[in-house]
Amino acid sequence: MSFDSTIHAKAVDLAKLGYEMTAAAGSGHPTSSASLAHITAVLMYQHMRWEPANPLHPCSDRLVLSAGHACPVIYAACAELGVMIGADPQNWRPMTRDDAMTLRAIDSVVEGHPNPIEGFPFFDAATGSLGQGLSVAIGLAIAARIDNLDKRVFCIIGDGEAREGQIWEAVDQIAEMHLSAVCPIINCNGYAQSDQVSKQQTAEVITAKLEAYGLDAKLIDGHNPTEIQEALSAHAQAQFNPDSRPVAIVAKTVKGWGSASQQGHGHHGKPATGEDMAQALAELEATSVQVGATADTTLKIGLMNAERPVPKEQTEALTFLQACEKFGQKDLIEGGKCATRRAYGVALHALGYSHPDVVALDADVKNSTFAEDFYKDEELNDRFVECRIAEQNMFSVAAGLSAGNKIPFCSTFAKFVVRGYDQIEMAVNSGANFKIIGSHAGITLAADGPSQMSLPDVAWFRSFTTTQNKKGQPAFYVLQPCDAYQAYALTLAMAEYDGPCYMRTLRPNVEFLYGEADQFNLGGHELLAPGRDLMIVASGYMVHEANDALDILDAQGLDVALVDLYSLPFDDEAILDLANDANGMILTLEDNYGGGIGSAIADVVSASGDGFTVKQMFVKKIPKSGRSTDDLLAYTGLNAQNIAAQALEMLQLTPA
Amino acid sequence: MSFDSTIHAKAVDLAKLGYEMTAAAGSGHPTSSASLAHITAVLMYQHMRWEPANPLHPCSDRLVLSAGHACPVIYAACAELGVMIGADPQNWRPMTRDDAMTLRAIDSVVEGHPNPIEGFPFFDAATGSLGQGLSVAIGLAIAARIDNLDKRVFCIIGDGEAREGQIWEAVDQIAEMHLSAVCPIINCNGYAQSDQVSKQQTAEVITAKLEAYGLDAKLIDGHNPTEIQEALSAHAQAQFNPDSRPVAIVAKTVKGWGSASQQGHGHHGKPATGEDMAQALAELEATSVQVGATADTTLKIGLMNAERPVPKEQTEALTFLQACEKFGQKDLIEGGKCATRRAYGVALHALGYSHPDVVALDADVKNSTFAEDFYKDEELNDRFVECRIAEQNMFSVAAGLSAGNKIPFCSTFAKFVVRGYDQIEMAVNSGANFKIIGSHAGITLAADGPSQMSLPDVAWFRSFTTTQNKKGQPAFYVLQPCDAYQAYALTLAMAEYDGPCYMRTLRPNVEFLYGEADQFNLGGHELLAPGRDLMIVASGYMVHEANDALDILDAQGLDVALVDLYSLPFDDEAILDLANDANGMILTLEDNYGGGIGSAIADVVSASGDGFTVKQMFVKKIPKSGRSTDDLLAYTGLNAQNIAAQALEMLQLTPA
Repeated sequence: MSFDSTIHAKAVDLAKLGYEMTAAAGSGHPTSSASLAHITAVLMYQHMRWEPANPLHPCSDRLVLSAGHACPVIYAACAELGVMIGADPQNWRPMTRDDAMTLRAIDSVVEGHPNPIEGFPFFDAATGSLGQGLSVAIGLAIAARIDNLDKRVFCIIGDGEAREGQIWEAVDQIAEMHLSAVCPIINCNGYAQSDQVSKQQTAEVITAKLEAYGLDAKLIDGHNPTEIQEALSAHAQAQFNPDSRPVAIVAKTVKGWGSASQQGHGHHGKPATGEDMAQALAELEATSVQVGATADTTLKIGLMNAERPVPKEQTEALTFLQACEKFGQKDLIEGGKCATRRAYGVALHALGYSHPDVVALDADVKNSTFAEDFYKDEELNDRFVECRIAEQNMFSVAAGLSAGNKIPFCSTFAKFVVRGYDQIEMAVNSGANFKIIGSHAGITLAADGPSQMSLPDVAWFRSFTTTQNKKGQPAFYVLQPCDAYQAYALTLAMAEYDGPCYMRTLRPNVEFLYGEADQFNLGGHELLAPGRDLMIVASGYMVHEANDALDILDAQGLDVALVDLYSLPFDDEAILDLANDANGMILTLEDNYGGGIGSAIADVVSASGDGFTVKQMFVKKIPKSGRSTDDLLAYTGLNAQNIAAQALEMLQLTPA
Repeated sequence: MSFDSTIHAKAVDLAKLGYEMTAAAGSGHPTSSASLAHITAVLMYQHMRWEPANPLHPCSDRLVLSAGHACPVIYAACAELGVMIGADPQNWRPMTRDDAMTLRAIDSVVEGHPNPIEGFPFFDAATGSLGQGLSVAIGLAIAARIDNLDKRVFCIIGDGEAREGQIWEAVDQIAEMHLSAVCPIINCNGYAQSDQVSKQQTAEVITAKLEAYGLDAKLIDGHNPTEIQEALSAHAQAQFNPDSRPVAIVAKTVKGWGSASQQGHGHHGKPATGEDMAQALAELEATSVQVGATADTTLKIGLMNAERPVPKEQTEALTFLQACEKFGQKDLIEGGKCATRRAYGVALHALGYSHPDVVALDADVKNSTFAEDFYKDEELNDRFVECRIAEQNMFSVAAGLSAGNKIPFCSTFAKFVVRGYDQIEMAVNSGANFKIIGSHAGITLAADGPSQMSLPDVAWFRSFTTTQNKKGQPAFYVLQPCDAYQAYALTLAMAEYDGPCYMRTLRPNVEFLYGEADQFNLGGHELLAPGRDLMIVASGYMVHEANDALDILDAQGLDVALVDLYSLPFDDEAILDLANDANGMILTLEDNYGGGIGSAIADVVSASGDGFTVKQMFVKKIPKSGRSTDDLLAYTGLNAQNIAAQALEMLQLTPA
């Protein structure tokens, strides 16, 4: 029983350090950690193929801790194994026990919940908001499949956490795509935060569910080293057997394993201190003796078949005209009008050829977003991931793909992107490089009504543009193209940029305002018309409505400027200069609720103290269905006539 | 077979009108409708206990169409049955066939997706963003259980839609709470929007899943009237049998039933027009003959046991001091400091006694939000709904509770509220009355790190404050109390207000700034200190940091005003007047990303043209773990020293 006794010894050590580091931090989850002590020990000391000195090796197996609060047990193992850490990737160093004791300190890389970006590369993504890790694991596994890497991706999920529907979206995708490289491990310790888990989340019910979803679920004792090892081996054997169902492991464990005084209700997220800690450690010591824990066997850690994949060469993407020519879509240009969502489809298709790391993800609306241009091309189809009607899963899969060095483009209706806002924020926190395309943005889709309209989306994404990520970049770029050339160019620009972007595309066909020669950049804007009396700032569909308003105002002898503010953030000073040239009178237009580009302009203007006036037009009542875009613009007071009237009012003029 | 032949005849009529109304609209989903023609006919013409003349009768069975895009079939039945509709509840009138033909028109109550608020009271909630209806049905069923009403709640879900994890969160809750009044009906027509459904969403796999979750799943032919009726009867029989599992129905159907030319891939969301429509209708006619459709039996519709519940009387809630006294919690006041989340718990507890319609919902953090004050009281416990770690479900359950005339209070970490943003928006669109309490808001929780911090939340909710709902109210109120008295008072104010509110509570204990006599209103603010040199505008925790900054600035001889802006929206003119009194210099403070109260002030100031200056301090880099609140404030540059320095810079002064 030397393997068992050695794993027991490791487990006791990990559990102990869990208590010590959370006591030092003054918060954290030692009992959840203890429930995972054996599983962590078997995985990290024996079963996984990886190198502590090289935690990011592309061939190494991965471990995603979806139940992020249990991270002290992983930190404990990393400290003992000397896993490389450090805020500066050029200066990684082996983690020590002293590092572990800095858990949750402001100047420590040892975060309260897993996060690679602060300097802990062992983790692939930030977790801690529950239910997301299995989808991240799927993304890593799909990236590996594309790169022909045979690595496995282990994912530890809590039993209480298994109530999150996203877990089951992910299980569906594992079964559908036969992603046997992913190994879900459900840690059934019986307790959630505020209570015992529900009868729906017992090990037995979870096992039955996994089987009903088409997985081969192994129910084991999560503190029995041999049972753990055997279940993991069963997973390994099934990995390349097309006749085997993907294997999942359901582990019955004890929260606070080894320390009776820390078990039962009331110990979630509470470090033991003083006498309580002494007792917990003493009990662990006694348990250690009882289970015969002795480190009498050498465990093996290491990589096999560690040939790094050859990076695929990226080339310059075609221009819009070239791509339309190549793909037989010249009708898009010759028709005089083209929807921005169609141009996005062409651009994504072109990127499929020029950018071998681009992966396209869909949530069953590829024929509406035009991501189907990529899907229908057999040359590219293996880099298309159909996530079905399960947006949460899609965005976390994208985070995993990014960690696997892919460039995921996720497209769905802008309205449905909101289903994954938490997943998107966690991906931002992870430092992921991913792109979101929200089609049918704003009110212009009209007929389907507000259940399909994105209305507070610009406000939410704009909030991220006001803050910086670890690289000193805006945490998001928000892009709102108004014509097909611009949509095409911005899609290519997103692929070139290493960071999160959100682009809104439109349902209706719109006129061309730009051409092949026009250049667009993240952070840019375009002065479409100069003018001295007033400046209209708009983006997306509203640029077209503004153009019509300019005609009305011109007929009244007014000289009105028009700025296409297609990016957030933008160049504050340049916008203030333009406003200064336009009499300090600014009118902003949006097809969404407030807090978007109007507030962005208001922020800049009010900070300047220049005394300019900003009037904002946006959707000021909850919209409804209407048969045409014009119906909706009139209903919300946002058509060219409304705009012209507002401009005249600002200039204290009456309509001619 | 007269029941069958009559239902077939109804089904043909409903399918036909589905084609006609979507053709008139120019968009919509006739083939999804046709797949539901028999199920709709059996439910609405025979099985449900309800009255077309009284669609909101509290005793009537309910039908939630989760697959909202299939609504034409429901509209067709409502038009034939003369169900009451109308934008003005005082002037309802029976729906006609002509009304059906106004589908999706801007001046019609017949929306593109179900929505009660535009004038269609048969529906309980807006649907169309998928996966939410079953949770709404749960809310309706819980409300009925509280009111001792024996009604049943039918919910039609698409097979593609069943990929959404929220559906399975809801199934878990049905099984856990034994909510046999809910009847999930999965419509397995085999096609989603862009493709056939996955092998994970076949009728057989969905049946196996439902069984694994603990339901009794009846797999039937969804075009066989007798099979439908028998399955529904089995559901009825199980409703009050504690030994029966809750029954669900899985119906195999044909998308485009009755019209071969409309079946198969490529017909989702596409009305048939011209010759295509003529063919579809002719095929339906032929099918009608083939299945022996003859309306030769009188179907029965009506209510039984329709005794309306007696409304429960509401009384005035206790004050904070009275409540602390009653509940044995005087220590909260005597300690000198009290967290706003604690005061919320006391207020919720008090409302439990004074407001019999208040229902408390939790997502497994009741010991952190202090909703457990309500849960632990046996007098109130039957109005506490533990939704476990499944936030999406929680918010849609709240929408259902509101439709059942309850006042739901949903509490969880502010960070995890984002999991339900789509559900929240759909509830807003529905006109629901619900309250959200996000605890541990902003950065001040510190140690757990950004996976538990709400950072773009104020921007998102603020976006709703800029628009109006059907009642002409702001679509949301955002409340950020800074002390326990204020948190208590605002919780009571939320209960009194009929509409959506979001209140942020804080993890740390904070000093008392107010007392029993102070009054707080939605839309209000409080001038805590007058001042002529500059005005600081803050809310929540930042009010305390601002107070400390005032001391620093006062020592330098500066006279700085402090406004507690605890509500969004607020009184624009009053704030401008205060700014005018303070030299037109405004400094805003937030513990979240931008787009919150700073932008709200910037909007008002820049619209005024008064030339005031607004500098905004907020979280300008993605935060990390730190062991104390002060660590985080220093890390993000938001502590009293930083604030004082920014104020001095605005006044072009240097620190003394």
